[in-house]
Amino acid sequence: MAFDVPPGYRALKDADVAAYLAGVPAVANQLGGRSADWKVREVGDGNLNFVFVVEGPAGGVVLKQALPYLRLVGESWPLPLRRAFFEHQALITEARVAPQHVPEVFHFDETLALTVMAYLSPHIILRKGLIRGIVYPNLADHMATFMAETLFATSDLGQPAAAKKKQMALFCDNIELCRITEDLVFTDPWRLADGNRWTSPQLDATAAAVRSDGPWKRAAQEFKLKFLGEAQALIHGDLHSGSIMVTESDSRAIDPEFAFYGPMGFDVGALIGNLYLAFFSQSGHETRPGDRDRYRDWILQTVEAVWTLFDGRFRALWNKAHGGDVFMPDLFSSGPDQAAFDAAQDAYMRRLFVDSLGFGGCKMTRRILGLAHVEDMESIADPERRAGCEQRALRLARTLMVDGATFTDIKAVSEAARALQREAARVPA
Amino acid sequence: MAFDVPPGYRALKDADVAAYLAGVPAVANQLGGRSADWKVREVGDGNLNFVFVVEGPAGGVVLKQALPYLRLVGESWPLPLRRAFFEHQALITEARVAPQHVPEVFHFDETLALTVMAYLSPHIILRKGLIRGIVYPNLADHMATFMAETLFATSDLGQPAAAKKKQMALFCDNIELCRITEDLVFTDPWRLADGNRWTSPQLDATAAAVRSDGPWKRAAQEFKLKFLGEAQALIHGDLHSGSIMVTESDSRAIDPEFAFYGPMGFDVGALIGNLYLAFFSQSGHETRPGDRDRYRDWILQTVEAVWTLFDGRFRALWNKAHGGDVFMPDLFSSGPDQAAFDAAQDAYMRRLFVDSLGFGGCKMTRRILGLAHVEDMESIADPERRAGCEQRALRLARTLMVDGATFTDIKAVSEAARALQREAARVPA
Repeated sequence: MAFDVPPGYRALKDADVAAYLAGVPAVANQLGGRSADWKVREVGDGNLNFVFVVEGPAGGVVLKQALPYLRLVGESWPLPLRRAFFEHQALITEARVAPQHVPEVFHFDETLALTVMAYLSPHIILRKGLIRGIVYPNLADHMATFMAETLFATSDLGQPAAAKKKQMALFCDNIELCRITEDLVFTDPWRLADGNRWTSPQLDATAAAVRSDGPWKRAAQEFKLKFLGEAQALIHGDLHSGSIMVTESDSRAIDPEFAFYGPMGFDVGALIGNLYLAFFSQSGHETRPGDRDRYRDWILQTVEAVWTLFDGRFRALWNKAHGGDVFMPDLFSSGPDQAAFDAAQDAYMRRLFVDSLGFGGCKMTRRILGLAHVEDMESIADPERRAGCEQRALRLARTLMVDGATFTDIKAVSEAARALQREAARVPA
Repeated sequence: MAFDVPPGYRALKDADVAAYLAGVPAVANQLGGRSADWKVREVGDGNLNFVFVVEGPAGGVVLKQALPYLRLVGESWPLPLRRAFFEHQALITEARVAPQHVPEVFHFDETLALTVMAYLSPHIILRKGLIRGIVYPNLADHMATFMAETLFATSDLGQPAAAKKKQMALFCDNIELCRITEDLVFTDPWRLADGNRWTSPQLDATAAAVRSDGPWKRAAQEFKLKFLGEAQALIHGDLHSGSIMVTESDSRAIDPEFAFYGPMGFDVGALIGNLYLAFFSQSGHETRPGDRDRYRDWILQTVEAVWTLFDGRFRALWNKAHGGDVFMPDLFSSGPDQAAFDAAQDAYMRRLFVDSLGFGGCKMTRRILGLAHVEDMESIADPERRAGCEQRALRLARTLMVDGATFTDIKAVSEAARALQREAARVPA
């Protein structure tokens, strides 16, 4: 199945980019000088798009253009260009409440399915920083803020039903990108599917066991059902550590082309799950045993801070006068009502916590047994060592998905991760 | 706020109806003879529309036309004509899987916001039958079938995500009718709101107590949150006993203009809640004490059968090869997997059961303390007697909303209703 390419669409080549941007005054000003002076380079390392960095005398921009197929696989896997429209809609929605944590958008061209936005420099992809062992002291605070602000504002707590339904109608059309998640995150790792791969032969038996693990498959389908039917808020939809650009003082979420009205825990879980993947990958990056111990601790502290700060921010937004049509403060204004309101809020955050753990587990699993893997693990050259890291990550993933409700708090989850890691230290993989 | 009236819209008068229908061949054939022979009468006793019954030599039809305002309140409460579009969409969607339980549609005119459909005769509105004490031996079976077929087919279990998202995008626009439910069912009974009324002064203290009942208000808002965010299936949205036309051998759900992608328990709860209202109203219709005892028993048996048959039908549909993108049978094909699948199905049906009870409680409450009441209670002339019936219904409603999860099964709920009724028999209201 191919998707319609709108008349006028063409894939820009490196040589076309400067001429195109010269015709967009807002961007030309941003770059400064003459277009002949602009340096253009293609940097896309993602799976879906072309990404050009353009630098001029006054500054830089990024031009991101969608292709009518999945870059990772090729023309045999067509993808609608309209994902650029959803990405742009999501970016401007996020920028309304968390402008400090998204790239500024300068220009959107619907026909060419391209967005021009701020060039984030000297940022690097968070995942690469995690592999190198770089500490980001503000990361948890920034991402907790990003998630709390964007998820609250677009939830039924944060906006009137009419506004939500209007935007939701729009994002209902982001069918194909949701479909990728439905298949790759919630289904394929638990069945024999084209494109699945794993560290072989080391994980062959594990992969087979996962495919016949009834309770685990049940959990995957339960979370898929939530993904399909719980329209809680406009979620980023792909918030792993490859979608976050960082410096030690700045953190920005990019690439929200998978955005739609879905379960909030999918975003929180993507981040937490990928941090746990980073945690378990560390022993593969040690040059001598123990030299990543402190970094491992930092990752767990970061996971704990992500949840704790997110929980606090989300509640703070809810407790202020807010724009939603549910749990309106004036309904619970008397003293005794406050206890009922607090209990409702606790229950809400608890559900979101358990959802986040479960979705995190789905994301971890698919990165080890599914089509698209992560550099955290892939960059571990020794397959024995890599398989050991992946085994431990899979064990936590299963626990998060099947038994997430047994964790009293995020500290207890970190303890479970630490316990798996300690076991590994005793029995080297 | 008024809504756009499309050019060409006009409200038909009795005298216009025959001429209009003469221009619609499918309908003219249905009626037979010449249009001069057709008898037209306006019969709308609902809150939102004009309804004409037209009878000709060969048969009858119903013409239902939306007005640009809420009929019950008047032009001060404008309502979009587009609700006729949603009603028509819902009717044809329902007819695909349960044609025997909806009126056949002969004609839809989007400009005039009118639908022409089968005249159901000698059917009466179920609510009127319940007041008269008429037994409908097949009602539970019919409505369980209607709900199971329509809810399953439009859920993520019954249709692919892409198809669901497309239809959901359409129904996201049914904003104003959803808004009526959001306000009248989930909010207004628990606060001082214009239009609220109750049997006064008998229920004055009760109404005040409800408005300061923290746990009850919390429950109302929890169910409102589900109504706003859980896009489980295309629900009828107003499936009370006034939206069901019956004979002893036929049952049809009408008036799905509140349809949207929402929580399935809202439909099941509407029916169950209204049956419990009918149950508690019976002592107001007794001409001598006890002469409705057997009818009361039949109502409770019917409630039990509605849930039990619904549960069985829904599971049967699920267990067949089905069209959804979740819980696909081939994922759970081995023996040991079956236990996990069964556990997932049990948990799913259990959640739906608890939701149905809670939504039922919301619907019961709003009919006693909110704007729109039900004839079951309103037709009890003696306010003391009526207030007694209403008090008991409110007590069950609170239990269903706050403690629904404590009921092991539908029989236990009927027992609770019976216990409240027995108390009443000991202490006459």
